[in-house]
Amino acid sequence: MVDGPLALPFYPQALPGRFLTLPELPLDSGQVLRDVRIAFTTHGVLAADKSNAILICHALTGDQYVLDTHPITGKTGWWSTLVGPCKPIDPQRHFIICANVIGGCMGSTGPRDLDPATGRPYGLTFPVITIADMVRAQAALVDWLGIDQLAAVVGGSMGGMQVLQWAAAYPHRVRAAVPIATATRHSAQNIAFHEVGRQAIMADPDWRGGAYLEAGTRPERGLAVARMAAHITYLSEPALQRKFGRTLQNRANLSFGFDADFQVESYLRHQGRSFVERFDANAYLYITRAMDYFDLAAEHGSVAAAFRGTRTRFCVVSFTSDWLFPTVESRQLVRALTAVAADVSFCEIATDRGHDAFLLEEPELEAVLRGFLNGRDRSRGAS
Amino acid sequence: MVDGPLALPFYPQALPGRFLTLPELPLDSGQVLRDVRIAFTTHGVLAADKSNAILICHALTGDQYVLDTHPITGKTGWWSTLVGPCKPIDPQRHFIICANVIGGCMGSTGPRDLDPATGRPYGLTFPVITIADMVRAQAALVDWLGIDQLAAVVGGSMGGMQVLQWAAAYPHRVRAAVPIATATRHSAQNIAFHEVGRQAIMADPDWRGGAYLEAGTRPERGLAVARMAAHITYLSEPALQRKFGRTLQNRANLSFGFDADFQVESYLRHQGRSFVERFDANAYLYITRAMDYFDLAAEHGSVAAAFRGTRTRFCVVSFTSDWLFPTVESRQLVRALTAVAADVSFCEIATDRGHDAFLLEEPELEAVLRGFLNGRDRSRGAS
Repeated sequence: MVDGPLALPFYPQALPGRFLTLPELPLDSGQVLRDVRIAFTTHGVLAADKSNAILICHALTGDQYVLDTHPITGKTGWWSTLVGPCKPIDPQRHFIICANVIGGCMGSTGPRDLDPATGRPYGLTFPVITIADMVRAQAALVDWLGIDQLAAVVGGSMGGMQVLQWAAAYPHRVRAAVPIATATRHSAQNIAFHEVGRQAIMADPDWRGGAYLEAGTRPERGLAVARMAAHITYLSEPALQRKFGRTLQNRANLSFGFDADFQVESYLRHQGRSFVERFDANAYLYITRAMDYFDLAAEHGSVAAAFRGTRTRFCVVSFTSDWLFPTVESRQLVRALTAVAADVSFCEIATDRGHDAFLLEEPELEAVLRGFLNGRDRSRGAS
Repeated sequence: MVDGPLALPFYPQALPGRFLTLPELPLDSGQVLRDVRIAFTTHGVLAADKSNAILICHALTGDQYVLDTHPITGKTGWWSTLVGPCKPIDPQRHFIICANVIGGCMGSTGPRDLDPATGRPYGLTFPVITIADMVRAQAALVDWLGIDQLAAVVGGSMGGMQVLQWAAAYPHRVRAAVPIATATRHSAQNIAFHEVGRQAIMADPDWRGGAYLEAGTRPERGLAVARMAAHITYLSEPALQRKFGRTLQNRANLSFGFDADFQVESYLRHQGRSFVERFDANAYLYITRAMDYFDLAAEHGSVAAAFRGTRTRFCVVSFTSDWLFPTVESRQLVRALTAVAADVSFCEIATDRGHDAFLLEEPELEAVLRGFLNGRDRSRGAS
């Protein structure tokens, strides 16, 4: 447990898990990040032939605590629905790696760290990073762990973007790729929602032009509004209707005021409040920006070109009610992979739970992932 | 042109248009509003038999300038696509009435007015109002104009809620009702988006607990964020993709910064900035709350019960890409109207322009409205 989650001084070494420091990391922006710390967790034992390593990539507000109890919230690991003993990704069989992304706020180097050149928190002087930068850092970690090839890279949402970037940038290092509820580029609507969140943070006077750590303030109200807006996009209209509808919160009648009359208001406010306890506002700016910038086709000429000649096996998953990363975007990915004769399977899972379905108990998702990863294992055993 | 749109002192009488003052208006909350000013415009001439009056109800951020140039923005009337000479609603044939809603900020009594009891701006002491309160004020205006029965009540979005409330509360006074892109109750997701907007405003320190007028401040940043979030919901993913996609704004390459790299960001920021020049933050709170509270079924037991025995002709219109008030909600309304044998026609218009389609040049909408209103006129002529 760190002493005050976002308070200065920040002792990442107090966080559970492991750390690797790279002397430098070249970035897509042309800048070079120095003394780069990567916070990560591993579970399971690496096989003698190093064939059982699975890298899990987290989403926008996720972290390396995929299986462990979260040190701030005390909640169980964010993907314990799919990762754990007897789960599709199983520490009894796999060597599981999960790293906090560069630019994040759970131990990997990000905007709330001290800039070694100045000794002061980076704030907005932190370089803008990309999904490729995050993946480049992860590749250095995988190198350091002595692993040439990953059995699988798996992730949802922004984690899925990293999966695609891995498969595009390091095709020989990825035997299987599972991009879930994601896309090959961030849509205009998604950029728009991110921009609303960033503007909400920057509108908070406590943001102080990004230098709030030095000022001793925290843009909590702005960050909470950003989270509330984003949270709506993670759900779906039918799920909100089913869970909340127009049910009132602890009252029989409308209050004719601006209290949280409706349960859905109370729920959203709670989401905003609890988020600011565990997340850094500048990290939110940087990570949303990295997602906005992601565009495989722009980098490679086309999505198909990004995967030409790939021998990676792909399992693409989408959810019917996900309107943040709708199925049509997964289909476009599948078409591009098919166009280069990639080994790809695709599953659209019927659920009303929206984008967040990838984080929830979804038996079909578990079955698909289990089948795909076991198929992989069997084919290796037979070869 | 008013001198500084939202600055104190506020001279509503400087606004173009007409005014009516009611000594009091009883509200759904049980409170009574005193010295209620209704700002409205009329166009055309009331027929001797008073049979040609059409009431237009405006949406959340609309006003009475349905046809006239807006006194602040200088733009042409907000519904000049459908209202005007040779348009479906035609001042050469109809007597057109449009009133700013109670709780608004364009001349009708709202939270930035002075409370006659204290001589100070209402701010958050203004009573929470409902769609029924808005319609009650309009009914008093229609009384004052000496009109028993309206040829039609027409409106989109929140205007459509008022249309439905008119038809439910005053069935004998509404010959024809045209609810466009609306619903009989505000959905959980829509309440959630409104709550984000309200929280953004209330998070702005310049909001001052609602008493910003007395403090001489304006919560411009919060209101702009609220508008940005809402604006996304008025469009559609395909329209955003078509209009902006990932096109960069006045640059050839990504800036690796937090400027508005993408056109969609620049567009949204502009929407936020221009909105605060013409709208009052507290009015935004009150009007969104009125929409949240709207629920015909809760008031009447069922939607069908709200319209039992109605002789009003209904023309219900929805748009395929509207995800704020999706077609399914219009269909539910049509089913309820059909269940009580109401005279109802329904048209879902194919467009990728989202909820905002009702404000835009949509030839099919124009044709549907023209046909419906002319049919009305013909049947009267034949009778």
